[in-house]
Amino acid sequence: MTNMTTDQLVKEIKRKQSFLCIGLDVDLNIIPERLLKEEDPIFAFNKAIIDATHQLCVAYKPNTAFYEAYGIKGWQALEKTIDYLNENYPEIFTIADAKRGDIGNTSTMYAKAFFEDLAFDSVTVAPYMGKDSVEPFLAFKNKHTILLALTSNQGAFDFQTKTVENQELYKQVLETSKTWNNSENLMYVVGATKAEYLAEIREIIPDSFLLVPGVGAQGGNLQDVCKYGMNDSVGLLINSSRGIIYASKGNNFALAAANKAAELQKEMKAILG
Amino acid sequence: MTNMTTDQLVKEIKRKQSFLCIGLDVDLNIIPERLLKEEDPIFAFNKAIIDATHQLCVAYKPNTAFYEAYGIKGWQALEKTIDYLNENYPEIFTIADAKRGDIGNTSTMYAKAFFEDLAFDSVTVAPYMGKDSVEPFLAFKNKHTILLALTSNQGAFDFQTKTVENQELYKQVLETSKTWNNSENLMYVVGATKAEYLAEIREIIPDSFLLVPGVGAQGGNLQDVCKYGMNDSVGLLINSSRGIIYASKGNNFALAAANKAAELQKEMKAILG
Repeated sequence: MTNMTTDQLVKEIKRKQSFLCIGLDVDLNIIPERLLKEEDPIFAFNKAIIDATHQLCVAYKPNTAFYEAYGIKGWQALEKTIDYLNENYPEIFTIADAKRGDIGNTSTMYAKAFFEDLAFDSVTVAPYMGKDSVEPFLAFKNKHTILLALTSNQGAFDFQTKTVENQELYKQVLETSKTWNNSENLMYVVGATKAEYLAEIREIIPDSFLLVPGVGAQGGNLQDVCKYGMNDSVGLLINSSRGIIYASKGNNFALAAANKAAELQKEMKAILG
Repeated sequence: MTNMTTDQLVKEIKRKQSFLCIGLDVDLNIIPERLLKEEDPIFAFNKAIIDATHQLCVAYKPNTAFYEAYGIKGWQALEKTIDYLNENYPEIFTIADAKRGDIGNTSTMYAKAFFEDLAFDSVTVAPYMGKDSVEPFLAFKNKHTILLALTSNQGAFDFQTKTVENQELYKQVLETSKTWNNSENLMYVVGATKAEYLAEIREIIPDSFLLVPGVGAQGGNLQDVCKYGMNDSVGLLINSSRGIIYASKGNNFALAAANKAAELQKEMKAILG
């Protein structure tokens, strides 16, 4: 959808019995060779994945790096992908995984790019530059700003978990962001590889949605994430990218992706039930 | 240039008696109306600015937000701008002000986008995700990664200046980044609005180049920045964006930009002499 509320997202989660987000990180070196003959191989791949999996997930998350790496053609593929989602599957929550952030007027340009021009429901944003770099995103009504808090990579321990004024930096980010204008439009990135941190995170932001990468390829565990991170409105979007979209590198890739997504959806259904 | 070394940059600074960087942050709502009739107004604006100012500066810095906000047309204008610079003014150091950063394999995609596909000399990168989000950029030979340390905006005080293990977070970023692989390819963003911090920053990174935004429109002072931030190889790139490119909003905008750039170059020449 292009203006999806959190309530609508929760409704979709309950209807589909899934809080799965599929990462559309398309690498032309990995996708089936026959797709390379298509006019737009990236979009052809995404379309096949989306058509095969849309009933099993509630969100798709293209990471912009994988599109920018192919220049104008990549940007076109990103545009086609989000247009295809908004036209054919308006019930889907869309995330531009862009990790942007800049001084005020510049962040407004990024927000326009992702919320208006591309019409995503949400965008990921980095917190390092503080309040006036994030508020321009938060100013958009019925759009969601997903702030990096605790990421799934090893480098998260370089700064995010360091102690700042008696609490870890990522907790400081959570606490501080709650005071920003329109903070009700915030969601947060919290890596599944650090599931044990989720209990303390939930003390600071009990109601917010969390986008959780790192299940699957990066080693995070779904049961642990749900045990510590789930709230009354579910409050979780679990992302899997490579584990689903590259489940098979053969011509049956879309079916293989659907099977992998179905496995996760089944696990989620059991947890929700 | 597409593979400019720091030595070559220093040589250009001495030859031109300038360490000015001009920010190409093109906003179609501000540029002269007659340009809107051009096939590519953003590129037409940039070309006029570049042709009028290239002898007065050593670097240009397009901020990617201003291009992404115009979708595919914006990305095309960015591509044309960097191609125009590399073909016609190979002595110019080019900076993609993109503030990117993601987990390892994804950062590699961003690095490819800016270093290979677009052939910039350098790109700005955010530090929040730590070592494995920055090293993929550093792995590119004769390319420069400009890490956000202390930014020029008010939000810099939200996290960057908070104390982490007995020193401010931005100092922790400086110290830690020195231990990363290929750290000799690092430069740093330090805002001119915080010139008084530069003396202590120079104690940690005496030799690195600093990209200094915030002179002019944001209120930073050139004399102060040089007093505390200059090293034996100059070590500074002072950026001005709006103060130069929007010096006039009339048809004489390129001439007005050149006059403004010449004022700054004259000040820089006096400081270098």
